[in-house]
Amino acid sequence: MTDRQRLKELGQQLRVDAVRAADAAGSGHPTSSMSAADLMAVLASGHLRYDFDAPEHAGNDHLIFSKGHASPLLYSLYKACGVISDAELLRYRRLGSPLEGHPTPRLPWVDVATGSLGQGLPIGAGVALAGTSLDRLPYRVWVLCGDSELAEGSVWESFEYAGQARLANLTAILDINRLGQRGPTRHGWDLDAYRRRVEAFGWHTVEIDGHDVEQIDAAYREAAETTDRPTAIIARTVKGAGVSAVADQEGAHGKPVPDAEEAISELGGTRDMRIEVAAPTSGGVRQRPGGAAVDLPTFDVGEEAATRDAFGQAVTAAGTARDDVVVLDGEVADSTRAKFFAAEHPERFFEFYIAEQQMIAAAVGLQVRGWTPYAATFAAFLTRAYDFIRMAAVSRADINLVGSHAGVSIGEDGPSQMGLEDMAALRAVHNSVVLHPCDANSSARLTAGMAEHDGVSYLRTMRGKTPVLYGPDEGFEIGGSKVLRSSGADEVTVVGAGATVHEALAAADKLAGEGVAVRVIDAYSVKPVDAPTLRAAAEETGRIVTVEDHWPEGGLGDAVLDVFADTRSRPRTMKLAVSHMPASAAPDEQRREAGIDAGAIEAAVRGILRQEETPAAAGA
Amino acid sequence: MTDRQRLKELGQQLRVDAVRAADAAGSGHPTSSMSAADLMAVLASGHLRYDFDAPEHAGNDHLIFSKGHASPLLYSLYKACGVISDAELLRYRRLGSPLEGHPTPRLPWVDVATGSLGQGLPIGAGVALAGTSLDRLPYRVWVLCGDSELAEGSVWESFEYAGQARLANLTAILDINRLGQRGPTRHGWDLDAYRRRVEAFGWHTVEIDGHDVEQIDAAYREAAETTDRPTAIIARTVKGAGVSAVADQEGAHGKPVPDAEEAISELGGTRDMRIEVAAPTSGGVRQRPGGAAVDLPTFDVGEEAATRDAFGQAVTAAGTARDDVVVLDGEVADSTRAKFFAAEHPERFFEFYIAEQQMIAAAVGLQVRGWTPYAATFAAFLTRAYDFIRMAAVSRADINLVGSHAGVSIGEDGPSQMGLEDMAALRAVHNSVVLHPCDANSSARLTAGMAEHDGVSYLRTMRGKTPVLYGPDEGFEIGGSKVLRSSGADEVTVVGAGATVHEALAAADKLAGEGVAVRVIDAYSVKPVDAPTLRAAAEETGRIVTVEDHWPEGGLGDAVLDVFADTRSRPRTMKLAVSHMPASAAPDEQRREAGIDAGAIEAAVRGILRQEETPAAAGA
Repeated sequence: MTDRQRLKELGQQLRVDAVRAADAAGSGHPTSSMSAADLMAVLASGHLRYDFDAPEHAGNDHLIFSKGHASPLLYSLYKACGVISDAELLRYRRLGSPLEGHPTPRLPWVDVATGSLGQGLPIGAGVALAGTSLDRLPYRVWVLCGDSELAEGSVWESFEYAGQARLANLTAILDINRLGQRGPTRHGWDLDAYRRRVEAFGWHTVEIDGHDVEQIDAAYREAAETTDRPTAIIARTVKGAGVSAVADQEGAHGKPVPDAEEAISELGGTRDMRIEVAAPTSGGVRQRPGGAAVDLPTFDVGEEAATRDAFGQAVTAAGTARDDVVVLDGEVADSTRAKFFAAEHPERFFEFYIAEQQMIAAAVGLQVRGWTPYAATFAAFLTRAYDFIRMAAVSRADINLVGSHAGVSIGEDGPSQMGLEDMAALRAVHNSVVLHPCDANSSARLTAGMAEHDGVSYLRTMRGKTPVLYGPDEGFEIGGSKVLRSSGADEVTVVGAGATVHEALAAADKLAGEGVAVRVIDAYSVKPVDAPTLRAAAEETGRIVTVEDHWPEGGLGDAVLDVFADTRSRPRTMKLAVSHMPASAAPDEQRREAGIDAGAIEAAVRGILRQEETPAAAGA
Repeated sequence: MTDRQRLKELGQQLRVDAVRAADAAGSGHPTSSMSAADLMAVLASGHLRYDFDAPEHAGNDHLIFSKGHASPLLYSLYKACGVISDAELLRYRRLGSPLEGHPTPRLPWVDVATGSLGQGLPIGAGVALAGTSLDRLPYRVWVLCGDSELAEGSVWESFEYAGQARLANLTAILDINRLGQRGPTRHGWDLDAYRRRVEAFGWHTVEIDGHDVEQIDAAYREAAETTDRPTAIIARTVKGAGVSAVADQEGAHGKPVPDAEEAISELGGTRDMRIEVAAPTSGGVRQRPGGAAVDLPTFDVGEEAATRDAFGQAVTAAGTARDDVVVLDGEVADSTRAKFFAAEHPERFFEFYIAEQQMIAAAVGLQVRGWTPYAATFAAFLTRAYDFIRMAAVSRADINLVGSHAGVSIGEDGPSQMGLEDMAALRAVHNSVVLHPCDANSSARLTAGMAEHDGVSYLRTMRGKTPVLYGPDEGFEIGGSKVLRSSGADEVTVVGAGATVHEALAAADKLAGEGVAVRVIDAYSVKPVDAPTLRAAAEETGRIVTVEDHWPEGGLGDAVLDVFADTRSRPRTMKLAVSHMPASAAPDEQRREAGIDAGAIEAAVRGILRQEETPAAAGA
């Protein structure tokens, strides 16, 4: 048969298999798969360059299904490429199957998890950035987007970013099937509405009939030939195309077709055509550079230095030792101190302006290519990208996040700029690490160390200067802590992190003068927290006061309480945290007003020493 | 003097006072204030309609500083309007002063807190929506935006939403001063770059010199005369305009001018001109409708019903009883069941498509006008708008959030669709309430009850059906719980919420057969949690197992542990939560794999009964 017939047949095969997969699973999105079947059939047959035997091949193109719910199409494509069997396809969405409802990197050919809409394009922009600016390889990045997800602001951050960065290796394939989950999309089949918007952001666009294989083929060629900007292929498609019972019908989203048998026969029955995907032309396996010893900045004990400055100097040193280290920032590099890295390694520093979602997505995209990203902004503004951080964990991504300006200690700027929920949010990310150093040397050490952790690592830094407590040779492990005051006579243990460590030391000194011995622990590793040291302190002092520059929920105090959950007789504990909505004031005033300063700690220690058993617990 | 001279003088006065305020505070953003001074002088003098003696006047215009860091300009404007004194202005950013570093509603003329960039315009769109579709009053909404914040995707969600909704009462004033925090913005003074983008989204645009008072005046008139779409005034301005030491200079962001004396004299010295702001032409104090009794849906004990269905029916009933109830959804109303409300009260249902940030911002904007919003999407996707939820608390906003599809119990769709960090994120919002009912009747009651709470209230609903446990007349208070199994012989208490309550009941029944009496508590109010009931259970059973369909951090388990923080001898506790990254599987399989099903609870109860004192706590 002619190439045209072959491609049309292939599209039908992908539809049939998508219908069969969803039917076998009893759930899934066959109709959202059918609208894009021809787009993918043509891409894989004539344009995608990928070595399925070597997913790690550095020259491979990257295909990202931003509309992750079209997974039946992706898996049907994999079957046509000969990498999964029909039996595997029919175990779609079953317990133990790597063919999940939405794609994840449990499959070696999937770069990142999708399914939270509006993330695939920003992540794809990150991969494309790696191609043009770091790997300098000719691989292309193809991102299949749904029309509903174009309502997400993150997608427009991405059109803006990729347009200005002129990422010509990036092609967005917009599957305009007119129907969202619950009905028509905002713009329906008004392709011009999308064209006007996307072109305004500096992209090349092509409008096509997404079921005409020749138009599709020509569009991909046009995209490849457009070398000065990214291309968006705006394809008019029909949701459920090929099956009259569901084609262009509302109410057919996210469920198997009513009669699979009938649908399959209408589609011409099952087929077993194979796609020979072209191999990449260049590249090879990229050697990830080994980590040479990092020549960290050092600070003298007693000098005053900001943990954010230590981060900035340390990440710059890490960048000198390791050429895989890259830094991203959201137009606040002067505040986060990422500017130090930008000055030293401009070719590995990337400015995302105030677009935190695109910044985190790009970090995820860069680590897909083996780079080691540090992404920095104010701790408060990482909340802007929380869905991206959550999904990064599903992607098993190795990213390093840095949030500056922690807590009320920032002072006059007020609550909008204060990270007060960041520890709770980041602790609740699967397999995450949360670090909050109190001095410059520990901040420098942890900056280098966090890159060794697989998964999402978070460093929480402070705006203001704090006294350097540790010598430059002191080691800081993820999961560790430091006992700063200790004696056999300790009656209470005070556990702090960041600014509150210094408040705790001041309180301990004051109380020592009154004959009250207090142990002080710097719990710089909030997750994982140092359980053995805390258990020992509980055993020896019997009482614990936690103090944090954060809301009371989900932070250091809860991490400490969790350590003692399973032991019956536990230290009496008192949790100090930010007690009310702050306003503007000086840092010292802020900590006093919040009830987390030395005075509050002293009062808590005195109170816990006075405290009697509460009746409620008497029987326990 | 001529009107033109007067306006120019007024602009200079605002600059002088901005310089003085920041100088007195020793921090702040005078240069970002000076770029917009003429824009605000002309607005307040001839276009804003506002009764400063009656901020609650329903006919008042709304002026929102999306670039909240320009607060010195806003407060200088208030001074010129005669509502704050010079002495108050000079207490800017001081402890106790309501003139915070970024505006908050502690000032009666401020609608919402800003300072996290890219939020003022989406919130303004919500206020404008209230004007056109609910209040039906001719007030206008004026939003002053910086150029840096136009990089935020949320701003483009807003241009898209307001453009399509044709919110002609909304005017965005874009202060294009070319310089961001750390240097030039992406587009500098390329006004056309902004015009192309904004026009593509259906807005009317006007490009002006932002320091030419006649051009500014004409632009406001043009905006008012544009009745079929919103208008964006794209104003070329100079950051630090009027003070040569900082004008158009990098490195002058976010700090007082170097020499205030010199700056003030260059600006022509201090002035004390007054602005007579025109009064609103219509409206008056809007009477917030009283809450008539809500005729809630009822479900029979034993029948199977989904808590999301109960929410949908209950919010519909609330909308029938109270005409102030409005519902917002992010293109998943069929899943969240907000569709029930949409069918019954279409005039008070608002579709935001997949733009969660604009949806939450609109909810904040609607409550500014006294409406009672419920905003619904998947629990997982509320993370997309976490920064907006955080800021809603700073705004003291009364909003009701509903997150469906909680936890692994959703089944086959997989982790991208599972709300697993939502309780941690929402608990860490100041003054929030977190509710997670396990049956339809409690879900219905809490849906109605949450609107009575001031602040951010969150209802977590489930996809699947669960047996109805409670009679329709049972009451459910915020901060309450229900003891479902209890006897004098109870050896262990199991605390669950949502799906895990049913697993706990199954485990308790199984264990009862083995002669182990287990108390079961439905902790439907996760924040505030029912401390007295938990303390009593601890006293009487000595052991507690918590079980939640959520990550281990920051959810129900931590809320329960916190109750016992301050009592020395506490129940031995075991926390069951989702232990690993889920994939696709059936709901029962998911709970089993996660270690939160009846079997896991039985094992935990047997384990905790076997468990000896741990050495670590022996000394405590």
